[in-house]
Amino acid sequence: MASAKQKATTRLESDSFGPIEVPADMLWGAQTQRSLQNFKIGGERMPVPLIRAYGLLKQAAAEANMKAGKLDKKIGKAIAQASAEVAAGELDGHFPLVVWQTGSGTQTNMNANEVIANRANELMGGKRGEKKPVHPNDQVNYGQSSNDSFPTAMHIAAVQQVQQSVLPALTYLQKALDKKAKEFAKIIKIGRTHLQDATPVTLGQEFSGYAMQVKLGIDRIKATLPRLYALAQGGTAVGTGLNAAKGFDKAFCAELKKLTGLPFAPAANKFEALAAHDAMVEISGAYNVLAASLMKIANDVRLLGSGPRSGLAELNLPENEPGSSIMPGKVNPTQCEAMTMVCAQVMGNHVTVTVSGATGHLELNVFKPVIIYNVLQSGRLLADAAMSFTDNCVVGITPNLPRIKQSLEQSLMLVTALNTHIGYDNAAKIAKKAHKEGSSLKEAGIALGLLTAEQFDKWVRPADMLGPK
Amino acid sequence: MASAKQKATTRLESDSFGPIEVPADMLWGAQTQRSLQNFKIGGERMPVPLIRAYGLLKQAAAEANMKAGKLDKKIGKAIAQASAEVAAGELDGHFPLVVWQTGSGTQTNMNANEVIANRANELMGGKRGEKKPVHPNDQVNYGQSSNDSFPTAMHIAAVQQVQQSVLPALTYLQKALDKKAKEFAKIIKIGRTHLQDATPVTLGQEFSGYAMQVKLGIDRIKATLPRLYALAQGGTAVGTGLNAAKGFDKAFCAELKKLTGLPFAPAANKFEALAAHDAMVEISGAYNVLAASLMKIANDVRLLGSGPRSGLAELNLPENEPGSSIMPGKVNPTQCEAMTMVCAQVMGNHVTVTVSGATGHLELNVFKPVIIYNVLQSGRLLADAAMSFTDNCVVGITPNLPRIKQSLEQSLMLVTALNTHIGYDNAAKIAKKAHKEGSSLKEAGIALGLLTAEQFDKWVRPADMLGPK
Amino acid sequence: MASAKQKATTRLESDSFGPIEVPADMLWGAQTQRSLQNFKIGGERMPVPLIRAYGLLKQAAAEANMKAGKLDKKIGKAIAQASAEVAAGELDGHFPLVVWQTGSGTQTNMNANEVIANRANELMGGKRGEKKPVHPNDQVNYGQSSNDSFPTAMHIAAVQQVQQSVLPALTYLQKALDKKAKEFAKIIKIGRTHLQDATPVTLGQEFSGYAMQVKLGIDRIKATLPRLYALAQGGTAVGTGLNAAKGFDKAFCAELKKLTGLPFAPAANKFEALAAHDAMVEISGAYNVLAASLMKIANDVRLLGSGPRSGLAELNLPENEPGSSIMPGKVNPTQCEAMTMVCAQVMGNHVTVTVSGATGHLELNVFKPVIIYNVLQSGRLLADAAMSFTDNCVVGITPNLPRIKQSLEQSLMLVTALNTHIGYDNAAKIAKKAHKEGSSLKEAGIALGLLTAEQFDKWVRPADMLGPK
Amino acid sequence: MASAKQKATTRLESDSFGPIEVPADMLWGAQTQRSLQNFKIGGERMPVPLIRAYGLLKQAAAEANMKAGKLDKKIGKAIAQASAEVAAGELDGHFPLVVWQTGSGTQTNMNANEVIANRANELMGGKRGEKKPVHPNDQVNYGQSSNDSFPTAMHIAAVQQVQQSVLPALTYLQKALDKKAKEFAKIIKIGRTHLQDATPVTLGQEFSGYAMQVKLGIDRIKATLPRLYALAQGGTAVGTGLNAAKGFDKAFCAELKKLTGLPFAPAANKFEALAAHDAMVEISGAYNVLAASLMKIANDVRLLGSGPRSGLAELNLPENEPGSSIMPGKVNPTQCEAMTMVCAQVMGNHVTVTVSGATGHLELNVFKPVIIYNVLQSGRLLADAAMSFTDNCVVGITPNLPRIKQSLEQSLMLVTALNTHIGYDNAAKIAKKAHKEGSSLKEAGIALGLLTAEQFDKWVRPADMLGPK
Repeated sequence: MASAKQKATTRLESDSFGPIEVPADMLWGAQTQRSLQNFKIGGERMPVPLIRAYGLLKQAAAEANMKAGKLDKKIGKAIAQASAEVAAGELDGHFPLVVWQTGSGTQTNMNANEVIANRANELMGGKRGEKKPVHPNDQVNYGQSSNDSFPTAMHIAAVQQVQQSVLPALTYLQKALDKKAKEFAKIIKIGRTHLQDATPVTLGQEFSGYAMQVKLGIDRIKATLPRLYALAQGGTAVGTGLNAAKGFDKAFCAELKKLTGLPFAPAANKFEALAAHDAMVEISGAYNVLAASLMKIANDVRLLGSGPRSGLAELNLPENEPGSSIMPGKVNPTQCEAMTMVCAQVMGNHVTVTVSGATGHLELNVFKPVIIYNVLQSGRLLADAAMSFTDNCVVGITPNLPRIKQSLEQSLMLVTALNTHIGYDNAAKIAKKAHKEGSSLKEAGIALGLLTAEQFDKWVRPADMLGPK
Repeated sequence: MASAKQKATTRLESDSFGPIEVPADMLWGAQTQRSLQNFKIGGERMPVPLIRAYGLLKQAAAEANMKAGKLDKKIGKAIAQASAEVAAGELDGHFPLVVWQTGSGTQTNMNANEVIANRANELMGGKRGEKKPVHPNDQVNYGQSSNDSFPTAMHIAAVQQVQQSVLPALTYLQKALDKKAKEFAKIIKIGRTHLQDATPVTLGQEFSGYAMQVKLGIDRIKATLPRLYALAQGGTAVGTGLNAAKGFDKAFCAELKKLTGLPFAPAANKFEALAAHDAMVEISGAYNVLAASLMKIANDVRLLGSGPRSGLAELNLPENEPGSSIMPGKVNPTQCEAMTMVCAQVMGNHVTVTVSGATGHLELNVFKPVIIYNVLQSGRLLADAAMSFTDNCVVGITPNLPRIKQSLEQSLMLVTALNTHIGYDNAAKIAKKAHKEGSSLKEAGIALGLLTAEQFDKWVRPADMLGPK
Repeated sequence: MASAKQKATTRLESDSFGPIEVPADMLWGAQTQRSLQNFKIGGERMPVPLIRAYGLLKQAAAEANMKAGKLDKKIGKAIAQASAEVAAGELDGHFPLVVWQTGSGTQTNMNANEVIANRANELMGGKRGEKKPVHPNDQVNYGQSSNDSFPTAMHIAAVQQVQQSVLPALTYLQKALDKKAKEFAKIIKIGRTHLQDATPVTLGQEFSGYAMQVKLGIDRIKATLPRLYALAQGGTAVGTGLNAAKGFDKAFCAELKKLTGLPFAPAANKFEALAAHDAMVEISGAYNVLAASLMKIANDVRLLGSGPRSGLAELNLPENEPGSSIMPGKVNPTQCEAMTMVCAQVMGNHVTVTVSGATGHLELNVFKPVIIYNVLQSGRLLADAAMSFTDNCVVGITPNLPRIKQSLEQSLMLVTALNTHIGYDNAAKIAKKAHKEGSSLKEAGIALGLLTAEQFDKWVRPADMLGPK
Repeated sequence: MASAKQKATTRLESDSFGPIEVPADMLWGAQTQRSLQNFKIGGERMPVPLIRAYGLLKQAAAEANMKAGKLDKKIGKAIAQASAEVAAGELDGHFPLVVWQTGSGTQTNMNANEVIANRANELMGGKRGEKKPVHPNDQVNYGQSSNDSFPTAMHIAAVQQVQQSVLPALTYLQKALDKKAKEFAKIIKIGRTHLQDATPVTLGQEFSGYAMQVKLGIDRIKATLPRLYALAQGGTAVGTGLNAAKGFDKAFCAELKKLTGLPFAPAANKFEALAAHDAMVEISGAYNVLAASLMKIANDVRLLGSGPRSGLAELNLPENEPGSSIMPGKVNPTQCEAMTMVCAQVMGNHVTVTVSGATGHLELNVFKPVIIYNVLQSGRLLADAAMSFTDNCVVGITPNLPRIKQSLEQSLMLVTALNTHIGYDNAAKIAKKAHKEGSSLKEAGIALGLLTAEQFDKWVRPADMLGPK
């Protein structure tokens, strides 16, 4: 029971389950409050980008409904304005719900409806909790269901993150890697396959591979967009569009396009769009490939930067902070570590999204909140880590030229250049003899009588081993 | 020590490690034999489609090398012919190696080189094990490394499977679902969200959602092809192309295109193509989305087909075989079960491929065999299961009309049609009263004085609830 | 450059990289500040339970070092007191670092060292930032490294969560399920295998299976504890224990036992304890089994509760809140949905932990923060969801007796009771005939001349089909 | 339609679906044949260890049923003998079904029933296909269902693999690692954390960590056994035990114990044992931890063995075979590669098992075949790879002493020994100066005036840095 003091700071809101007390200074209503009380699980709130996407969504819906004559203009404008405030992040604090609620996200849709209704009523001179002139269901939610609006908000939030964060960050990283590839184009070094000494490459060629991985990762993400631009809105409860105005889906997308500048369009099949989230599994899969790519790149960078004295030590990585609480002067490849941890997280998130995407039933997938939570976390982490890795690691990498030279020159795999002159089997004899005796290839080759010093010097030139002839 | 009797059935082959006995009736050589002895792990042989792709690869390489003047025509033709036999599956039995060998697949590349060299020597009148006139490394492998040829064979095998099996099977399933969608277009039934009664849909609409999931799955697979057509061949040991003829990559792809009719092209960056297998993680990811889709579809079908008496029982599934060793007359949705098991396998395979793809080092990813083993298993299982599910389940599905009618008519969620007439809150009162009292919506609505019988009959018509108005 | 105004609110701290400005009101020092600036990745802070575990750790270390004469008593007591404040959660706000930092957690270890040193210096009358009399490395971190202390804090936090949250919550759920099993012991209902009608069970038997799954889940978690109680502390930088006092590991665990009441003990091999986190992969695996169990249970509950009219409808689930923004009166199995979303998250987290655990190098695994972040998230979500599911769903479940009776009586699988009387093949004939004709088993059996009405009534009794005879 | 020639080689078998032609030389019957025709999916046959476990199961069941007087002795003995032949592997070829069949494994249970019935009838002078005197359902399957027998066979097969292959192989590996740890106990080398130079360890200490990981892995597997010894047998169709004799579960386990020597016992709750496979998810989880451990170990070994000239090169790994088709004389850490591929497979399999375990419905989990397929594959691969890795890699590892000495002596992290003498901050100054100038620590320390040459020589001794003091 609420004490007198508490009463002073709450107000009554109500829904079909009856009245319930809500903090007076908050804009949410009865259904939000019930969710808060019924789902004391974890601390992960519904992601802010989703909340703001909901603002855009409710604004576009209000505009479309007004144009269709389904919503009183005065009311519609108030709803649109309140929604715009949500979209702008001004009301973030009024969205307290956690991810671990109903699987349709209904409670967050109602949170949006309630906040916007209360705020719109205030804008129109009304009071919180009265549900008039603006009713959260009958007006704010007009022609909508959680079942179509939540997936719509998921797509909007995911696409905006891709466009505003992920692609720019990846492009930034890709350019930095590409720049390094050009900068290091003439530095000849030992290649390594199976972690074992192999034939030469340039340091620039190595970095060109990394740049290409990121470039293809960008292509992969872009390839998912056609299916992310397809929106469920207009399907309402089960995909049929019951209670939505005819043409609402198109009108809605037109408004949303105005607000975002992005080519959203109605999903070709709304039943698919509510009952499955394959497009989310797909974008998560694109992030998963990227996680595999970045794990490889970051791992290579720290391997080549291992040392400073007793590692491969071919790269000098930027020294950003002390690395050890016990070993004085130690510096570690910490940006690589943050990146690889991010990659591991993205891989796990992908499994969560896959399991969730696979486990829908009939007309509705009810893993919507956990899906978008993971997709947005993966997107944010990848984008942030790409920026941090670029700024705090990639741009500052320099080659350790003396070490690179030494590693190259002592390599036995330069012998490969001899294949086309003396055959694989003879070349192998030279390499094995040199390895066994600790001698140079040249010495071994001459001792075996397979070539002369002049031939060796002519045939075995690292600079000639960097491409086909 | 080999006994006299054994000697009679073996011959000596040799490599840089020395001589080794090999079964006389087998075409493989020393390196294959060493792998057999050093890797007694599991029973999973290198997948046959990969072996045959290797045949195509070696044939195309021989043709390109002949044209470039790098390979004697007589030798080259013998190699091409022997390779064609591998491609045709005539020599499958000579590829005994398991997946769990060296991570570059070098032993399988040498298996191909050895089999083709021995076979080519035979074709030219020579003897097995003599390595002349055709030498496995110097001629069959000319201008190639395992490091570029194995990934090339991976891409060829994966693409051919996509084109010859996966896409046709999915199209077959998609058409069958689409046909059902049309066939069931007029059957109005209850929709279900959260597994709870919801507003009506048609059975055709439900199936249209499934058809769309498969259709989009096809699109997703196709979207990965640009990166699968890009081949590593020509990169040789570390991506530089050392020892390959200039232009070999393009010439090779031209020959391969002739052999396969598919638009293979050299990878834009060979370093990426050896050191990473992002394109494999990507196609595995497309299969993973499909697994999520098909898990949902198969699960829905068995749910709607549950019964025969005490389940939802809206669908009659084909009865293919007895379902129980103890319950006489029991029939089960076994095709759905095979399909969902396949989906679970594909999801796990995807994690294997992801972990493997992420764990390369420097110039080479050495998880190649496990990657292609999983990608080809996923592709085959999905294709086969799609065919089996179509033939043995989808095409035979019929609606249980009496049950569908009953479930629809008793639903309380028809109340949703009243929202736009009496408002959400009043409609909720009707539904809750009817639920509590076990009455019909109409009775409850009239009792509450919220509408008349005539209004109810006019407003609440399932056939009017199947789309926006 | 900091403006005059900013200067007023910052102070200078320093480390081996030089001086750096730090917010004046915060207790952290230079290394924490550098991490904040270098790792702008995501928003996930290092979990609070880990921070508090660090408080316990530093307190126990200070006590042990004092006893060993390695730490001046006055200084040691101040450190212990400051550490106790961290353990009590009083200084949570001074730990701002994110998960995505260095993979050893060094920056969080230094965060603890810095906060405790500054706080201890204050307690001794000194000033923040002066590092005396208490130095973060030389005293607070005495005999410790991040490399042994961070894994120790990981184990402490994970074990405390198991003991204080996870096991109590699971026991709570298990008891509730067990109570329902007893309450429902006499309710005979249709069993379902393959989602198809099968022989009878009691509702109590069904719930007993759920209770057993949770019970075994508890056993599994307990089975991991021996390896979680084993602590890395005392291994210092690489496992050798360099710079720690002899016997420090045992003394530390003795102090920690006093503080926590838990039987922590030094790891038998400190090299393993730093370089790998297999014990974390193990506990994550136990959570993963639990996720599989709870996914199944929650899924069953919502399936049995599907309806209210056109589902299986054998269970009435508590109605906690409105379920739809568009369908009035709809109520959904929302607790099941939150639970299944939690399970999907735990499964994905397990993959993250596995990949992270597998990817250590040589003397140190550097995925420590991401590992403990996921393990603690999984533990918290499972515990919270178990409580919420119990309170808001399990305890309120009631049987829908009329529906249960109807489903049972119409089942064809009661025919199984006839196997031992007329054989499987004859029984199958009866079931198939009844199914085809829509008749009862009795009618079909008599029509086929396989039994009499009396025999049927004697042999086919659901109440006799609930156990072996 | 079968031609005359084909007819000659088939016979008619029948089941409740009617007659069907079966290859005359095969012992299977109608239901097996239907499965073959209805499930043309993949090529993965039901694992042989499961088939043989089914032999044991049917034998134990026949014995128990005879003792309970439920089975005629003559018939029972024939069944037992035929079952023993299955258990001995003599009839492997008569089990043609694939994994991708019904999810209860009913078709494989019927395959066993049919083969054993036909074989028993032959033993008793009867003919194949006549189902008498021995009927596959009424006698061979007496008191059993696929639903309890398939999970029982799963547990038997998994436990036997653990006991006969996995634990022995792991023990073999653990002993080999332990032996190396002792052999290398005096070899002081540089430690590495973050892949960067750190304080010294002995090579023996490194290997002791690996040995401990495997040892704990063994403990983890053993910890799962209590739940694997618990058998579903006796639960029949839905867990109730309908149609089984009272006490059959115990009698069955007693017989099985005689046959296997293993402490199998009836599951405490049969409903759990049919409806879930948590025990399978659990053992898969134990394998998953092992995969993480072995991935780390194999990765370390190849990293320390990288070279031969331009890597860390501290270990010489056995040279088992040529490593490259293009680079003559190249030798690679192929056993490490096979091992890490196996680990990736096991991790993916674990996801498959988890998803499958989580997706049961009501009285039955119908992912049984895919679960046991993956568990047995993981077990076999781990066991085989552990043996291969031991024999072909671990036992032959030798230290590269000159390189180890060089790497140790040049390390800057020896500076850590100075912490307790001159403080962390001063020690850091020395290390940073030496790093910057490429000088030795001693030179830098003297130049900074922080210590004398004598002090340095006294304080900084790698041999004194291997443990606490």
